[in-house]
Amino acid sequence: MEFNRADHPHTRYNPLKGEWVLVSPHRSKRPWYGQVEDAPEENSIEYEPKNPLCPGSTRPNGQVNPNYQSTFTFINDFPALLEDVPSTPPSNDLLFQTESARGTCKVMCFHPKSDATLPLMTVTEIREVIDRWIEELTELGNKYIWVQIFENKGAIMGCSNPHPHCQIWASSFFPNEPRIKEHYQLEYYKKFKRPLLMDYVAKELEKKERIVTENADWVVVVPYWAVWPYETMLLPKAHLKRFTDLNGNQRDSLAAIIKVLTSKYDNLFYTSFPYSMGWHGAPTGPKLQEDVSHWVFHGIYYPPLLRSATVKKFLVGYEMLAQNQRDLTQEQAAEQLRNLPDIHYKESKK
Amino acid sequence: MEFNRADHPHTRYNPLKGEWVLVSPHRSKRPWYGQVEDAPEENSIEYEPKNPLCPGSTRPNGQVNPNYQSTFTFINDFPALLEDVPSTPPSNDLLFQTESARGTCKVMCFHPKSDATLPLMTVTEIREVIDRWIEELTELGNKYIWVQIFENKGAIMGCSNPHPHCQIWASSFFPNEPRIKEHYQLEYYKKFKRPLLMDYVAKELEKKERIVTENADWVVVVPYWAVWPYETMLLPKAHLKRFTDLNGNQRDSLAAIIKVLTSKYDNLFYTSFPYSMGWHGAPTGPKLQEDVSHWVFHGIYYPPLLRSATVKKFLVGYEMLAQNQRDLTQEQAAEQLRNLPDIHYKESKK
Ligand SMILES: O=P(O)(O)O[C@H]1O[C@H](CO)[C@@H](O)[C@H](O)[C@H]1O
Ligand SMILES: O=P(O)(O)O[C@H]1O[C@H](CO)[C@@H](O)[C@H](O)[C@H]1O
Repeated sequence: MEFNRADHPHTRYNPLKGEWVLVSPHRSKRPWYGQVEDAPEENSIEYEPKNPLCPGSTRPNGQVNPNYQSTFTFINDFPALLEDVPSTPPSNDLLFQTESARGTCKVMCFHPKSDATLPLMTVTEIREVIDRWIEELTELGNKYIWVQIFENKGAIMGCSNPHPHCQIWASSFFPNEPRIKEHYQLEYYKKFKRPLLMDYVAKELEKKERIVTENADWVVVVPYWAVWPYETMLLPKAHLKRFTDLNGNQRDSLAAIIKVLTSKYDNLFYTSFPYSMGWHGAPTGPKLQEDVSHWVFHGIYYPPLLRSATVKKFLVGYEMLAQNQRDLTQEQAAEQLRNLPDIHYKESKK
Repeated sequence: MEFNRADHPHTRYNPLKGEWVLVSPHRSKRPWYGQVEDAPEENSIEYEPKNPLCPGSTRPNGQVNPNYQSTFTFINDFPALLEDVPSTPPSNDLLFQTESARGTCKVMCFHPKSDATLPLMTVTEIREVIDRWIEELTELGNKYIWVQIFENKGAIMGCSNPHPHCQIWASSFFPNEPRIKEHYQLEYYKKFKRPLLMDYVAKELEKKERIVTENADWVVVVPYWAVWPYETMLLPKAHLKRFTDLNGNQRDSLAAIIKVLTSKYDNLFYTSFPYSMGWHGAPTGPKLQEDVSHWVFHGIYYPPLLRSATVKKFLVGYEMLAQNQRDLTQEQAAEQLRNLPDIHYKESKK
């Protein structure tokens, strides 16, 4: 019997994080008697005056939103990070180490209408969001080492407001996830004199096994080491180190591929597909002066659904205590997404 | 202004994993408009002939369960790991590494009655579960490097069958989580000639700030670096390296403290408190011959609830892409749990 990755349990290595994922392709056959979620629903209300994210609404802190026409950014009314925090006394015990954390948390509305989502917005509107992301990254990146732009889409992903928005948390500390990626990308670069992710993109373009969609500047793959069933990575074809490196064409083509990817996601289960997504690139602040050639700018999508709009993958006991485990291969997921139409099911009906 | 960990955002270091958690104590004041879960419910049906985990039931593979009186263990009908898997061809590309994964997945029912849960079982019944855990660990540990015993409790934690049970996944590979703990414990041991977690226990017993409950042999703390709101760690007072090291008294007192801890958990929100939990100790298989003095056996509880029986903590965008974040301090969580009665609310009403 020969090893066959579509049938046999195996582990795959994530070279960006130095960790493994268990792939159990035969397992998707098991019946599911567990928790079933409410199907994610698109918000059908265009304007809800009580929603603090809508144009003209009064927010919890008493401020009134402008009648914004495209995007709108403000400081989170309940921020996890604050700008002024006194310093901790030095802690000399390795087992009890604390550092004060400084930073800022912003909210960015994508669109004045509450029933908009990225896949249902025009490419021009998405391009405006991209421009605002880059502006925020430039401004906050002057001060902070890490600026995390992320979108929690859908109630199942902890999103507490249905109006289309993302968050931007900038911090004085270099968070775990990008710090680990910094380490592995640097190690690879020192050894091979090429950026890990540029080598990876080149090989994925050649192998053509995990590509979901691509255009002139960008490619979306289900990474070889993906954990979530339909996890994807959005990578540049040219070496971009930070979001701020994108030229006008690359911004336009990024808007276009975001529209295609998120439309495919919605088309998978005919639903407003939930996910958490965000952008990673070279660190900023004090690192703006350093050589960061080992870094490649990229986007990451972590969607929880597995079998349908109501059955998600639970990363629980074994995953939390031992190792992440998935039930379909990365190639199977990529093939499904690749074969779905680029046009959103709601827009093709028009 | 002086730094005060109950008020100011800060990060804390987890010396077992080399990673940080962001603590934002001021943030628990924010209102919650997001997803609300179904309240976890105790199963009120003692016996459901169609449930494949009940005594006498026919399982999906056609086998009939015995009329078991205490615990019952069998191979998972839909295992994520299989014993016979052909070897992968050698992969010389760092970016595309695969290994075949061998192992076995078992299910262990805790009790013949479907409406039992650990906190509602007697200490004697819990002691029987402990004895079976140790037997399984001994048997599977002869063959496999890692045997992960874990319980997913509650539908919210992906548990797909309400009958009280846990799972045991044994693997030919050393999974990420314990591999990382192996690394950090060994490093500490080489430097200080003492096991990291024994030093940690000694200091927690002295500081008395994060203790939830203790008895002659065991102590439960909310670890200094806890991520989940009410996460706890169950640690021995004497140096035990593996589950198989426990003597009779330590097994009895472990049963007793499990009953107290899980009763406190249920008492927090008057509900059958969901969690994923499991046991970590020195690796087995080929490692049985090695010196593992740096390891300390311990239990880990990861419960998702935050504010009530229906509002959980979402570890999503920022947490998945940057760093875990919590909204109350570890000391606040420990104090709440410590102050709750040891007796389960259902048993005290009797
Ligand atoms: O085997 P079960 O209980 O059906 O499955 C549950 O636990 C497994 C191990 O943590 C997870 O991989 C599954 O996603 C979860 O639903
Ligand atoms: O700020 P929000 O959207 O209310 O909060 C959401 O995202 C945060 C960042 O990922 C998480 O810490 C919260 O648990 C989640 O509910």
